[in-house]
Amino acid sequence: MSALPSPRSVSAPLPLSRQAAAAPEQPISRLMADALDNPKLISLAAGFVDERSLPRKLVQRYAGRLLDDPHSGGQALQYGLAAGDRQLRQAIAARYFADRWPQRTDAMILTTGSNQLLHLISECLLEPDDIVLCAAPTYFVYLAVLRDLGVRAVSVESDEHGVCPEALERTLDDLSARGLRDRVKMLYLVPYFDNPAGVTMPEHRRRAIIAALGEQAELAPPIALLADNAYRDLRYDGADVPCFVDLGAEPDWTIETGTFSKNLSPGLRVGWGVLPEPLHTAVLRRKSVIDFGSPHFSQCVVRDIVADGQLDEHLQNDLLPTYRSKRDAMIDACQRYLSRFDGVHFQQPGGGLYVWLQVPEPLGTAAGSTLWETCVRHGVLYVPGGFCFASEGAPVQNNTMRLSFGVQPEPRIAEGIELLGQAIEEALRRV
Amino acid sequence: MSALPSPRSVSAPLPLSRQAAAAPEQPISRLMADALDNPKLISLAAGFVDERSLPRKLVQRYAGRLLDDPHSGGQALQYGLAAGDRQLRQAIAARYFADRWPQRTDAMILTTGSNQLLHLISECLLEPDDIVLCAAPTYFVYLAVLRDLGVRAVSVESDEHGVCPEALERTLDDLSARGLRDRVKMLYLVPYFDNPAGVTMPEHRRRAIIAALGEQAELAPPIALLADNAYRDLRYDGADVPCFVDLGAEPDWTIETGTFSKNLSPGLRVGWGVLPEPLHTAVLRRKSVIDFGSPHFSQCVVRDIVADGQLDEHLQNDLLPTYRSKRDAMIDACQRYLSRFDGVHFQQPGGGLYVWLQVPEPLGTAAGSTLWETCVRHGVLYVPGGFCFASEGAPVQNNTMRLSFGVQPEPRIAEGIELLGQAIEEALRRV
Repeated sequence: MSALPSPRSVSAPLPLSRQAAAAPEQPISRLMADALDNPKLISLAAGFVDERSLPRKLVQRYAGRLLDDPHSGGQALQYGLAAGDRQLRQAIAARYFADRWPQRTDAMILTTGSNQLLHLISECLLEPDDIVLCAAPTYFVYLAVLRDLGVRAVSVESDEHGVCPEALERTLDDLSARGLRDRVKMLYLVPYFDNPAGVTMPEHRRRAIIAALGEQAELAPPIALLADNAYRDLRYDGADVPCFVDLGAEPDWTIETGTFSKNLSPGLRVGWGVLPEPLHTAVLRRKSVIDFGSPHFSQCVVRDIVADGQLDEHLQNDLLPTYRSKRDAMIDACQRYLSRFDGVHFQQPGGGLYVWLQVPEPLGTAAGSTLWETCVRHGVLYVPGGFCFASEGAPVQNNTMRLSFGVQPEPRIAEGIELLGQAIEEALRRV
Repeated sequence: MSALPSPRSVSAPLPLSRQAAAAPEQPISRLMADALDNPKLISLAAGFVDERSLPRKLVQRYAGRLLDDPHSGGQALQYGLAAGDRQLRQAIAARYFADRWPQRTDAMILTTGSNQLLHLISECLLEPDDIVLCAAPTYFVYLAVLRDLGVRAVSVESDEHGVCPEALERTLDDLSARGLRDRVKMLYLVPYFDNPAGVTMPEHRRRAIIAALGEQAELAPPIALLADNAYRDLRYDGADVPCFVDLGAEPDWTIETGTFSKNLSPGLRVGWGVLPEPLHTAVLRRKSVIDFGSPHFSQCVVRDIVADGQLDEHLQNDLLPTYRSKRDAMIDACQRYLSRFDGVHFQQPGGGLYVWLQVPEPLGTAAGSTLWETCVRHGVLYVPGGFCFASEGAPVQNNTMRLSFGVQPEPRIAEGIELLGQAIEEALRRV
């Protein structure tokens, strides 16, 4: 209560490690905090899920049942295995994979969302100045993971079907010519309804990617294929596509990850991945030291829900109809309020949570740009597309944005897009 | 189904990063796996908690109530803040701290158990070849965290009250004389009923440690004090001791961490810590990139249990009587079956989960030693004391072991100690 300087100011602050001191602020955190703090702003930015369709009653029923039984309840509240609940791993293996991948239950690790696993995999595979190839655009949080590790992300030209195999080969040729082929350690893909572009890679293109990586593996140390299948279950149109390993990608260099954050609940934080050796052992060891395994209680609840077929019930009856309708609401609103502008482009995604929008060329979408400021003033928030491009490789498209239809109810989606239209109009007048 | 070699064997395995390739196996994982796999073996090794006293009904009631309400239920199953649920942070601040620490709710981060936080703090503060001082013995998983970062752990002579302040000063003088004072970044302590020795640092000694670190902070970059209060609530005798920051340790260089794993449930995986700036910002940023925050659902359940005073009810009515009685069972059995050997020493811990046992000098306790092999044959498992010593500083006591009374019911505790007595007798005949 005194106005005198406190004795606290005597000592210097604790110096940070070089890595921590060098880390830039993570844009998504600020965007998320903005969205949570300002309920009036219509955030089409945050990658959150629809709150009303979260399976409250389902989790309540299964948590209740689990805890009723002294044995299963006691086990759920105890430490689990560092690799995660074995029966849940079996259920995931059965749900998502054909039989080709031997011992996939043993090669699986459950993590705190799949994002923790992306981080652990990267730490165990990558060195500073190594190169990871990715789509243009790609998942921006993973770009931050790579940046923190001092790893170079190089984007590969992509179209409405994802990364182009010819562009992948060209990029590899180019890196080889510069003596950098040995530094290329991984190709990172979000093959289903990707974040941010909403595109799914069709089977023929997956096969072409597999062939290209297979060829590389014969010439030099293999390039890991990290397939982040976070949105696979959020399919509103068309048929499922087999995952890479089921299409013949070598289990020796293929990593498949997934999560129950999008199809069930992010608050439970259960992600998973199947990893080749020796990566699997290295990640498991690291996880044992860091946190001894992710929450066993959440894993047991998810296990029982999946084992009872209730995840599919939830998807068919609640989640897919809800999101399909929200997706339609966003596309309708885009057609209604945005298609009148020359140079606006968007595609209807067959699943996932995102619409990738291109605005007229004179406009940029970066935080601080005229359009950004105008949008914030009008009360609508988006993720600037520039965040989603690696700093090397295919050119950054600065006139793009990621719009999410996950969080907002339909009227707010329509209202948000209408506000965006007004903001574009105003910004166009000012540039 | 063919006997021919599969095409898989053509490509080389993915090469690991140097850090991952260099990481040794973590002994506790193997010990835990052993314990889980062999139900007949009496494990006094694993740091698990008593399963029958886990608050099944309490968690069921609060999870049920939380999920009944569309608003609170929806929020609990949604992503939370990267820093963790705000109300839970407030409840923790109110529960464990006096008013001295300003803005401690804002400076708090919730993690996947406190172990994830120990890891994040270390990554953000420490560089390879930095030095962390610790007790002899100390928490061995944290030694593994430091080893993975290339950090040198140096143990400081400790007695039945924990680290000796005079030994701390001697160690610092010695390191200064060797030009290494600037590399000393942290003193790591488990000040309540510590793992593995079961000792609590009394108030007068805490004050001496604070004075020594305060003096250091005036001379050079401050040495962080990391107080890991994991076992504070598991107090079976005597009065609570204030934490370091409440005894005058500077918030600028003091980190206090805790967890709900021991006093409530490790399956929920809710840990916490209060951090000085700029460390707090660095850790929060890192956590945002790694996993976006630990499970919100668990945090909400813990929040409601703590806010309703039900944690204290659970402690007073269930947990403390259970563990007090198990502690007594272990000490009684040690007196009955072990005190007949010359050179056996143990102390009754006032709380926590561990008894630190010294066996007769000719015996070693390392994995693979005569005593270890004899114990495994007799069907009892312990943690070799040697795991719990840093490789530099105060000498390793190879004739020690950590015994946990957490998991086993009382008759099994007694039986385990009886088997240990038989094994010691047999091993003594053979050395």
